[in-house]
Amino acid sequence: MKRFLTPSDLGDINKALKEAAEIKNNPNAFQHLGKNKTAVLIFFNSSLRTRLSTQKAALNLGMNVIVLDINKESWKLETEFGVVMDGDKPEHIREAVPVIGQYCDIIGVRSFAKFENKEDDYSEKLLNQFIEYSGRPVISMESATRHPLQAFADLITIEEHKKVERPKVVLTWAPHPRALPQAVPNSFVEWMKVANVELTVTHPQGYELAPEFMDGVKVEYDQLKAFEGADFIYAKNWASFKDYGKVLTTDRSWTVDERKMAVTNNAKFMHCLPVRRNMIVTDGVLDSPNSIVVEEAANRVVSAQTVLKRMLEAL
Amino acid sequence: MKRFLTPSDLGDINKALKEAAEIKNNPNAFQHLGKNKTAVLIFFNSSLRTRLSTQKAALNLGMNVIVLDINKESWKLETEFGVVMDGDKPEHIREAVPVIGQYCDIIGVRSFAKFENKEDDYSEKLLNQFIEYSGRPVISMESATRHPLQAFADLITIEEHKKVERPKVVLTWAPHPRALPQAVPNSFVEWMKVANVELTVTHPQGYELAPEFMDGVKVEYDQLKAFEGADFIYAKNWASFKDYGKVLTTDRSWTVDERKMAVTNNAKFMHCLPVRRNMIVTDGVLDSPNSIVVEEAANRVVSAQTVLKRMLEAL
Amino acid sequence: MKRFLTPSDLGDINKALKEAAEIKNNPNAFQHLGKNKTAVLIFFNSSLRTRLSTQKAALNLGMNVIVLDINKESWKLETEFGVVMDGDKPEHIREAVPVIGQYCDIIGVRSFAKFENKEDDYSEKLLNQFIEYSGRPVISMESATRHPLQAFADLITIEEHKKVERPKVVLTWAPHPRALPQAVPNSFVEWMKVANVELTVTHPQGYELAPEFMDGVKVEYDQLKAFEGADFIYAKNWASFKDYGKVLTTDRSWTVDERKMAVTNNAKFMHCLPVRRNMIVTDGVLDSPNSIVVEEAANRVVSAQTVLKRMLEAL
Repeated sequence: MKRFLTPSDLGDINKALKEAAEIKNNPNAFQHLGKNKTAVLIFFNSSLRTRLSTQKAALNLGMNVIVLDINKESWKLETEFGVVMDGDKPEHIREAVPVIGQYCDIIGVRSFAKFENKEDDYSEKLLNQFIEYSGRPVISMESATRHPLQAFADLITIEEHKKVERPKVVLTWAPHPRALPQAVPNSFVEWMKVANVELTVTHPQGYELAPEFMDGVKVEYDQLKAFEGADFIYAKNWASFKDYGKVLTTDRSWTVDERKMAVTNNAKFMHCLPVRRNMIVTDGVLDSPNSIVVEEAANRVVSAQTVLKRMLEAL
Repeated sequence: MKRFLTPSDLGDINKALKEAAEIKNNPNAFQHLGKNKTAVLIFFNSSLRTRLSTQKAALNLGMNVIVLDINKESWKLETEFGVVMDGDKPEHIREAVPVIGQYCDIIGVRSFAKFENKEDDYSEKLLNQFIEYSGRPVISMESATRHPLQAFADLITIEEHKKVERPKVVLTWAPHPRALPQAVPNSFVEWMKVANVELTVTHPQGYELAPEFMDGVKVEYDQLKAFEGADFIYAKNWASFKDYGKVLTTDRSWTVDERKMAVTNNAKFMHCLPVRRNMIVTDGVLDSPNSIVVEEAANRVVSAQTVLKRMLEAL
Repeated sequence: MKRFLTPSDLGDINKALKEAAEIKNNPNAFQHLGKNKTAVLIFFNSSLRTRLSTQKAALNLGMNVIVLDINKESWKLETEFGVVMDGDKPEHIREAVPVIGQYCDIIGVRSFAKFENKEDDYSEKLLNQFIEYSGRPVISMESATRHPLQAFADLITIEEHKKVERPKVVLTWAPHPRALPQAVPNSFVEWMKVANVELTVTHPQGYELAPEFMDGVKVEYDQLKAFEGADFIYAKNWASFKDYGKVLTTDRSWTVDERKMAVTNNAKFMHCLPVRRNMIVTDGVLDSPNSIVVEEAANRVVSAQTVLKRMLEAL
């Protein structure tokens, strides 16, 4: 296993879910795998859950972990090729990446969409540099277009909470004051498509996700109608894909509230966190017993550990 | 042991001091306790001693340690309830705290008094969020009103250096250019009250500590008189409690110097560090053989390890 | 071994190179040495390679590692003596250093030349504070005048790649937009002088290195002539020593390019990294098979581990 970006990198998803359950049940059972192995976790962006849960997962596997906030602790990286480097970026990614590879066995990278250039973001330019030049297996800890550790944890959480064989899962856009990447909704859709769920996506006009993710996925522009009979409501803000990186509206009539949850099938409420209260979701819904956001976050250790275990086994 | 904030959290103080001495004598003897256990240390504020000594203590106990500078590496946290989160703080403490709890076995938190609101500070609002919502034992690594790891280390140091059964200990205010919290003096008084010492507090008018800490404690406004016959001089600056968070004076006639130390009983000089030379204390006193500030700092490992050991035993 | 700053701190250089080769061959063979030992790595400046490689080296030896970005995570340090500390620096190095020593067994320090005062830099004022007052063995992870872990790794790399008993090694100045310290070229010269190589240094007039390093070293002001027949080209920018800390020129006719490499004896290209492409060296040279900058960086683990091993053995 040389990279972790999409569900297909895990192969059979049911087998992966079974393995995740075993790991959750006995997190310290595989420490021989990580002995004398080192994970370097590179953060170009802020992180709470990803930082802590991926460290915890690696420690559970007996690995050494080195965390690097690359922009703050190291050198600013040039990512363009062929330039004369006479500006404020003293190091080129073309050196930094293979060098990091020399110091570890597995690399995790977090680098958000920059919203400067849709093609750069959607080609996963930076992550692919790590995959191509590091010489090590690479885990996306949220890259420009995807957040697979989150989506895998989301799927594990849905598996644990579902009451019917094929639950109705609704991904709903919700308002937010700033432009956020599409990584979380993209991955969520990508993972739900390979899972045994009935997926509906709801958002205002103009917030359509990239076509490459939405093939065959049902979109319902009426949020309340989308919620009807849902078993899981997954809320998330994202900026426009079409009008790339723009905030088209912050209309709080899209905030998830008790009134909307009432039309669901007693749905569980999910969000990847951090969540802006009373923008994305009301206090009432978030503090209700149906909110499983903390369990969802806890499963980030399980998803990360499953991926790290697979990579260690393949070293 | 679910929290560490006051001496009463340790129970019998003499038993705790004996345990601390055993740990100091054999720091690696309890590594079985920490195996596969993780401490997450959360810093809202700067730290040198607390950061290094608490990590060292946890490592001595065989624990994994994850350090998080939450404001720099993670998301800014909203602490108000009921607000619409449309500003610069993307995450609410109500989610962040239980999530952190999912990734560890013990939490340490450093969060200084903000001096915005006396009630918020003196109710230990932030620390209590961690105690209430994390689901884990919580150690104050200096919170709004107390610095118990420091005060416990201070007491250990006094025990090691005292030449009489019941030494005279003087806590003296000293000048400083900025407003500093009352956490260190509050805790020092709180711990000295349960120890076998004779405590005198000396400071200019207007620098009275909070009444809840000073019940039954002798205050002497004449600094030189307070120093007479002292076995330990503990210097510290703090801002006014009455005129909350204000610097009333930076009068350097309160600086601890050789002339004042001369009226003591050959007293040891103590300070929690960092210390501003020639403001709090002269170079001469700080560099004298009677200065035990480095030993005092070294005992921060011992106090932290005693507390962590108790918490691990109670898990 | 109480400090690591110059090659003489290692004693017999051939013995040290043999030891380094053994460590590289079997990096995990000495983990008993580091058990229950802690390295604290203090960074006053940014770092990628030094940070990761020194951590990795310590972990390979079974040590605990604590990393501290002292200016960001801790308190700003006063380094002047006798001052009244009423400014923006709340802690004096005279306390900070011995306190850090209390929390670890070995200290690594990175603190670049400040270019404020040649005497301060060239007396290694800050590093010597750590050596004098910490009570622990101290490793320079690049100090004001030297970068010995780099130079030792450079020598290891030259040993691995040399095709003749006594290769011709050329250190060449190259242009850069900012003023850089002389630590890397100083150490490179210092280590090459004790190695079995023929060293030539080339740079524009005015970029002469400090006389204390250059005793007996051949300087050739004609870069192309210097390159003739070279087996290794080591490029680096540095600011003027004579006109201390100044950039005298950014003349790109000094950039290392294919035309110049063509007059060498099929030389390997080396640089300590980070390197500014098309300022220091062209893309063509850096991306050629003769560029060994990544291997050179990888050997930073080997040099650090050899030094740490020696220090652990001497504890």
